Amino acid sequence: MLTDSVYPKSFASDNHAGVHPDVLDAMTAANRGDAPAYGDDRWTADFERRTKEAFGNGAEGFAVLNGAGANMVGLALMLGRYDAVICPDSAHIATHETGAAERLLGVKLITVPTADGKLRPDDITSRSGVLGVHHESQPRVVSVSQVTELGTSYSPAELAALAEAAHSSGMRLHVDGARLANAAAHLSCDLRAITTDVGVDVFSFGGTKNGALAAEAVVVLDASLVPGVPFLRRQSLQLASKMRFISAQLTALLTDDLWRRNATHANAMAARLAAGVADVPGARIVQPVESNAVFVALPPAVAAALKERFLFHYWDEAACVVRWMTAFDTTPEEVDDLLDALRKAVA
Amino acid sequence: MLTDSVYPKSFASDNHAGVHPDVLDAMTAANRGDAPAYGDDRWTADFERRTKEAFGNGAEGFAVLNGAGANMVGLALMLGRYDAVICPDSAHIATHETGAAERLLGVKLITVPTADGKLRPDDITSRSGVLGVHHESQPRVVSVSQVTELGTSYSPAELAALAEAAHSSGMRLHVDGARLANAAAHLSCDLRAITTDVGVDVFSFGGTKNGALAAEAVVVLDASLVPGVPFLRRQSLQLASKMRFISAQLTALLTDDLWRRNATHANAMAARLAAGVADVPGARIVQPVESNAVFVALPPAVAAALKERFLFHYWDEAACVVRWMTAFDTTPEEVDDLLDALRKAVA
Amino acid sequence: MLTDSVYPKSFASDNHAGVHPDVLDAMTAANRGDAPAYGDDRWTADFERRTKEAFGNGAEGFAVLNGAGANMVGLALMLGRYDAVICPDSAHIATHETGAAERLLGVKLITVPTADGKLRPDDITSRSGVLGVHHESQPRVVSVSQVTELGTSYSPAELAALAEAAHSSGMRLHVDGARLANAAAHLSCDLRAITTDVGVDVFSFGGTKNGALAAEAVVVLDASLVPGVPFLRRQSLQLASKMRFISAQLTALLTDDLWRRNATHANAMAARLAAGVADVPGARIVQPVESNAVFVALPPAVAAALKERFLFHYWDEAACVVRWMTAFDTTPEEVDDLLDALRKAVA
Amino acid sequence: MLTDSVYPKSFASDNHAGVHPDVLDAMTAANRGDAPAYGDDRWTADFERRTKEAFGNGAEGFAVLNGAGANMVGLALMLGRYDAVICPDSAHIATHETGAAERLLGVKLITVPTADGKLRPDDITSRSGVLGVHHESQPRVVSVSQVTELGTSYSPAELAALAEAAHSSGMRLHVDGARLANAAAHLSCDLRAITTDVGVDVFSFGGTKNGALAAEAVVVLDASLVPGVPFLRRQSLQLASKMRFISAQLTALLTDDLWRRNATHANAMAARLAAGVADVPGARIVQPVESNAVFVALPPAVAAALKERFLFHYWDEAACVVRWMTAFDTTPEEVDDLLDALRKAVA
Repeated sequence: MLTDSVYPKSFASDNHAGVHPDVLDAMTAANRGDAPAYGDDRWTADFERRTKEAFGNGAEGFAVLNGAGANMVGLALMLGRYDAVICPDSAHIATHETGAAERLLGVKLITVPTADGKLRPDDITSRSGVLGVHHESQPRVVSVSQVTELGTSYSPAELAALAEAAHSSGMRLHVDGARLANAAAHLSCDLRAITTDVGVDVFSFGGTKNGALAAEAVVVLDASLVPGVPFLRRQSLQLASKMRFISAQLTALLTDDLWRRNATHANAMAARLAAGVADVPGARIVQPVESNAVFVALPPAVAAALKERFLFHYWDEAACVVRWMTAFDTTPEEVDDLLDALRKAVA
Repeated sequence: MLTDSVYPKSFASDNHAGVHPDVLDAMTAANRGDAPAYGDDRWTADFERRTKEAFGNGAEGFAVLNGAGANMVGLALMLGRYDAVICPDSAHIATHETGAAERLLGVKLITVPTADGKLRPDDITSRSGVLGVHHESQPRVVSVSQVTELGTSYSPAELAALAEAAHSSGMRLHVDGARLANAAAHLSCDLRAITTDVGVDVFSFGGTKNGALAAEAVVVLDASLVPGVPFLRRQSLQLASKMRFISAQLTALLTDDLWRRNATHANAMAARLAAGVADVPGARIVQPVESNAVFVALPPAVAAALKERFLFHYWDEAACVVRWMTAFDTTPEEVDDLLDALRKAVA
Repeated sequence: MLTDSVYPKSFASDNHAGVHPDVLDAMTAANRGDAPAYGDDRWTADFERRTKEAFGNGAEGFAVLNGAGANMVGLALMLGRYDAVICPDSAHIATHETGAAERLLGVKLITVPTADGKLRPDDITSRSGVLGVHHESQPRVVSVSQVTELGTSYSPAELAALAEAAHSSGMRLHVDGARLANAAAHLSCDLRAITTDVGVDVFSFGGTKNGALAAEAVVVLDASLVPGVPFLRRQSLQLASKMRFISAQLTALLTDDLWRRNATHANAMAARLAAGVADVPGARIVQPVESNAVFVALPPAVAAALKERFLFHYWDEAACVVRWMTAFDTTPEEVDDLLDALRKAVA
Repeated sequence: MLTDSVYPKSFASDNHAGVHPDVLDAMTAANRGDAPAYGDDRWTADFERRTKEAFGNGAEGFAVLNGAGANMVGLALMLGRYDAVICPDSAHIATHETGAAERLLGVKLITVPTADGKLRPDDITSRSGVLGVHHESQPRVVSVSQVTELGTSYSPAELAALAEAAHSSGMRLHVDGARLANAAAHLSCDLRAITTDVGVDVFSFGGTKNGALAAEAVVVLDASLVPGVPFLRRQSLQLASKMRFISAQLTALLTDDLWRRNATHANAMAARLAAGVADVPGARIVQPVESNAVFVALPPAVAAALKERFLFHYWDEAACVVRWMTAFDTTPEEVDDLLDALRKAVA
């Protein structure tokens, strides 16, 4: 089906992939005559029910249009006028959203250097001393990414410890779950095992990188925050008028565990890639492979040679570390093709 | 095709309609393997070329996700920290975007009461006296909607006069073109005749209400403003990662004048509806029918009776004025059905 | 003392006046060696105690630097991310603070046209219908000025009715009290009779126009809002480091009813002026004189002639309405001098 | 004169000091009858002329109310909607203004770790690679403090190199000059030698810590930025209505080099203190003493003992580093008293 692409195979990002056929079918099926706009439709009701099935009865899901939007709506719910967010310095909200956190939310990001993209409880408690000091922004939310921007995954226990540290300091825990599915697949657990069950307050569940066209969910587990979502979603430019087509995408992913199948496949392709890289002299995997990303240090000439045939990004150009991402539709042949090219370039 | 809807026929909004089959086909056709994200793809290049064909070589188009997003990105380009926007008090940006203009842009909206949703040049010049007074927000943009929120359309001459008044006062002219297609169809003119040719600086071209799933364009005619768009689109949460699927929608509408066919049909259905209403005693059309909207004053009992079978909104509940909107997929039979019901309710 | 001014007598604003000697003496007296900064000093403690004496034990006072600052801090306490303020369209926050409400607070001002600068309860209740509609900014605060920008004063009963209307609609009541002293003097009541006792939630108490150099107080009567003030004051750039000198000004005004003596005198001068104007043919007082402001419609040539000798502002240039303001240091002779000049210009 | 203080001697901050008598005299002298408000007065004209004398004819000075306000107005002039500021991580704007930069300006602060509070050119050029990348905030301003928050001073050559690095990267250079006078006194240079002459674009000149009551200046050297200042000052709540009393303070400091006498004295007291500390075993000076601040590492018990008699702040509580600041009114006896106490505590 996807064989006649006009572009070379991309390992640049899971958002270079297309749309899973089941998702597109669900969108097409939703195209039946009129339906109320802005979410008062049965497809959105389906999505809301699926959200409760996946995350528990206390989970309220709200469909939005992209990952940055999901982050901004989710964070806005929890942040007042003089509040701050503690996050890793690699966090997407800190590095790749063109300052939306500062501009749209008006909040300070307190960024923590990390080796692997992961916060530890002490990163929270050691920064809580400013609470009550009126000359300083008040950290009220801890935001982590699951999967992290470095491809690592938090265990349920690690997340629970972060939630405990946050809550005991009067902060809430937010998870940027653009690749939440990949983490659950890696951990062989349910989605709720890394959200609802470990004390997360608000998170996003990413659809786009999992095979959707453009659909993410903001999921709220703290009931006191729910009333604000519709207003913040609308104001944040994240409300689709023909909402049924957004909801239908998320429902498709949440039906018959399509999210898990897609994520498991993508992770398996990353594992295959990592296994192959491990045997290549001069190539060095620099982060644990715990999702669909492989970070590899390469000789510059090798990286350059591969760039001629494949799409991918340099993560750290100075150190010549590249990031290779797989997706729901990456094939073993494509992985092997990259590995072949790598071996040839090294030779 | 759309006959098996699960909802009653809606005259509530053109965003209650589904997606035109040609648009959905174009999206499906774009689902071919990998493609670069964020707009570096050939479907987006196609859209950009179509934009220039429709609006002139100086027009730069940027695809975004919804109408409020198109407005905020377009306005942000032109507004500094202490600036204001002059607009009708019925403007969508003033009434239905949950204060996004104030919150995301930080600007004051100077709202002008109007009878028909249309600004006049004197509304601009009479408010330019505050320019240079440092105690007051500085009006730097005039924003009008084409079609207006009251279903009326500006003629090219009216828009040219607004542009002249704005420019001579040191302001720019912005057009919220969520229904730009309906205006061009009503006026039997090209799209550029009501944008490029009359001095508009920045406008949106609405796809969603014209048959798209979720796609609008911000079109910039002032070259000095172009470099800022990618940053503001990203920051404003309006950048799709799998952009090809947004661009493909807009290209479909701009191919073989699909936009015009859709708008002409919707307008014709509104005209058919208005013609029928004119003969019904007790029903009174309260705004000129110059697009796909019909505003009708009804006896309250009649409105209530129709509400049981059809979806529509009260525009002015106190005066019992309802708004009936048609869409690209409204059929003559559906219009006649509403008219039959109206006649029966009145009788 | 103040007779050797280098400028002509000004009736332009009460902020053209200098500083009352008692206030300057208090500032000088505070200049004793070191003192903790940012309000941890005994002069600030004095001010806080005086605030409770004037407004009740539940009143918490916070000194700030100017009137716009007092408004922004006070309003920020009560407004979330998608909230709006209902206020008269003549409100200072709407007209003369360069869009600070929109820019710094990100809120929409819902402005109500009025003849005399005063809101009525129906202006509130008739605008509460949008509460809960997520496409619209949510009015959560009603803000009125006492004295109004048109020189009129609300009676205690009028304010109580506004508070009742606001609270019953889920809104809070804010008072811009830049001239609160003048209102209390006009009404011959205590300061608390028009604040604490009538249900106001947050207000400002203006010092500068009452004889201070630069000092206003934000007074909070809703205890739940108090913890936020220090953060918002600091963030809003309204915290003086050498706070003792700001607090000392406010304490001076609150000592031995200096505020009332100053306001009573200013009001008396306005009354003397109004009485004189009433006898001048062609001059017409256009607003009730209920404070230290007199709004007078004049023949344009008369206004122009007076402009040559006195400082004052046109309020409505088209209608040739001028605003004459008196201050704590305006003398009867200066008033009579203006009246003489008026009579001559008319003759 | 200042001997009867009600508080113990403070080495906590130069803003614990009172007001220099010449400044208070100037304020008192300005209290002559009426004067136009908001800066249209002769005292403000005097200040503007003095600014040009001190900083060159191209320098335009604007009086504001406090240091954070001066920073926000100055930075706002140079920053668009998606811009960022590069600054040391110790910068006052990053640490002690309650997130005003993020909230009021909506900008990201890119904070650079430093040992001594000083940026180097490479800190700028190494961060310019994100310019043009629309996923990231765009660094457009470099902001440094002179004196730094660690008491160190940039040489003119160091500042010129920063300006060169900034300008060659398309950025502007801002200086937080809350203690600019102390730097000039330390460097034995004119004020313009560390501002105008080295390529600074916008800076603040701090009055409050130099002996004023509450007065700072925003000085703009880039003429293209001047027109925006009055609007931004007003909107940022930094415009005093009775401006003459703010301007008079700054003029007093700029008259007969009062600023230099005050700063030189404060610096000398710090030098005396540092010289004494150097002889005390167990006390270690941890930053170069290049202004009126002395950073000293002490045994915790010694610090605690001194805290009982003197006011000062811990800079780094974990490392037991304290900051001792002197001011224009610190006496040699007071310094010696602290040194005596230190020696006794150590013994």
